[in-house]
Formats: sequence, C-alpha cells, structure tokens
Amino acid sequence: MAEAKTLNDLFLDSLKDILFAERQILKALPKMARAATSPDLKTAIQSHRDQTEGQIERLEQIFSSMDMAPRGKHCPAIVGILEEGQEILDEYAGSPALDAGIIASAQAVEHYEIVRYGTLATWADLLGLADASKLLAATLAEEEKTDADLSKLAKARINTKAMAKAAA
Amino acid sequence: MAEAKTLNDLFLDSLKDILFAERQILKALPKMARAATSPDLKTAIQSHRDQTEGQIERLEQIFSSMDMAPRGKHCPAIVGILEEGQEILDEYAGSPALDAGIIASAQAVEHYEIVRYGTLATWADLLGLADASKLLAATLAEEEKTDADLSKLAKARINTKAMAKAAA
Repeated sequence: MAEAKTLNDLFLDSLKDILFAERQILKALPKMARAATSPDLKTAIQSHRDQTEGQIERLEQIFSSMDMAPRGKHCPAIVGILEEGQEILDEYAGSPALDAGIIASAQAVEHYEIVRYGTLATWADLLGLADASKLLAATLAEEEKTDADLSKLAKARINTKAMAKAAA
Repeated sequence: MAEAKTLNDLFLDSLKDILFAERQILKALPKMARAATSPDLKTAIQSHRDQTEGQIERLEQIFSSMDMAPRGKHCPAIVGILEEGQEILDEYAGSPALDAGIIASAQAVEHYEIVRYGTLATWADLLGLADASKLLAATLAEEEKTDADLSKLAKARINTKAMAKAAA
C-alpha cells in the first residue's frame, strides 16, 4: 500500500534504480570508447568505465549493510539516455563531429548519475545512514569530476577539431 | 551521409531534441504540481512550468534565426525520465514520501536540461552563433536556479516532513 511507503522505501527504490543504471552504463561505455577517435577521449571514457566498477561495488556494500540483495530495478531514464547515445554513434559514425557527440552523450549520463547520487546522499543523511552517505558522496564527487573533465576535453580540443574538419 | 555531418548538424539535432523535451516537460509539470502536497512545492513547479513556456519561445527564436521550422525530434531520454517521474506519482500516491519523490523527479528533469543547454551553449559559441548562445545561456541559468531552489526545498522541509510522518 502506498500509504505505508516511507522515505526509506524511496531510498531503496532509488538505490535499485541507480544500480540498474550503473550496470547498463558499464556495458555502454566500452562502445563509446571504441567509437571515439581522440585518444584523450578514449582514455577518459575507459578510465570512467573502471571507476564505474568501483561505484557498483559501493552500491553493493550499501545493499549488504541493509541486509538486502543487490537487485536493480528497471530504470527507463538511463535506457533512454543510452539510446540517444547509441543514436549519436550510429548517425555520426565517420563524421568529424562524432567525438563532440560522444562527449555530449557521456555528459548526459554523468548528469543523470549526479542528480541521483545527490538525492540519495541527502536521503541517507536524513535516514541516519552515515556509512551509506559517505559512500554515495564519494561516488558523487567522482561523477562531478568526470563531468568537469569531459567539459575541459570538449572545450580544449574535440569541438575545435570538429569545426576545423568541417571547414576543411 | 554521416561523413558530411558537422558540428552544425549536431547542434541542430540537439536543438530539436531539447525542443521535443521541453514540450514534453510542459505537459508533465502540471501533473507533478497537482500531485504535490506541499504548497511551496506546488508553487515552485507551477512557476517552472511558466518559465518553460519562455524557454520554448527562446528555442523557437533560435530556429527562426536559422530559417528553420521549430520541429522537435523524439528524445528517448526525456521520455524515460518522465516515465520514472510518473512511476513515483503512481507508486507513492498518498505516501508521506511523495513530495520528496516529486522533488527528485523534477531535479532529474532539470539535470537533463542543464547538461543539454550547457552543451548547446558551448557549441553555439564555437559556431559563432552569438545570439543563440545568449538565449541558451539565459535558459541554462534558469534551470540551474530551479535545481538549486528544489534542493533547498528538499533540505528545508519536504524530506523532514516525509521522515516525521513515517515515524508517527
């Protein structure tokens, strides 16, 4: 019954949502890295893929601390975000703008994670789950750094390259 | 042909994506506002709904400045994000955690807009579209403020209320 649902249920539902999302992201990142033409972008995506494994482990630790199995819950948002990322890979394959599109897709993924981890960390604080809060905040900081790094890459080289080739 | 696609195409494709997204958001926000129980949250969502109309007008101005019809392009990401928002409304109806869930859903929408407008503004700069860049930056600033306001609402009252009722 909905009436019986509390912030604790909302926290758990969202935890399952982001676990599903992280597992989908883990599968999608290698495709993006393979498609990227800039070596710096390839490296950035591959290293975020490795980081994602650690983020999934943190989520599993939280589930375990609550005596729950780490089961994901279908998350239509990440499915849609990754579907758009795949569209870019298909439609811009061979285009000078491909890397710029890949960065945009990766940043859309990062922002989904940033908003969910931000919310989860706030709720963990309110629920008195100090260890979970620390783990969630650690992942949030990583996602924010990845997003900032991608912005730097975009501004520094990738977009300019897309422009230069387009003008050539 | 993909080879012929440039940053300009990517900019236009993303502009169509966010136009579709804004139109979907315009339809979804009143449902969230009606479902919210906190008067402050209702007001915040309604005022963001009004703001969204202005943001759509800015996008239409950009299309017009490029001599293009303001046609949206199906955006699976926003469809998925709003689908998750609807799930919260359905599953948490009558629950003390409903408002906390609505804020989380609204912030997921905001972050999708923030990442897309951030990318679009960067690309507009690179493409020398100074007027478009200003319009996109204006919307970006509004989205960031809405997201910050929602965080404040969540921290100040809504989540605490969800906790209090859950404990009662």
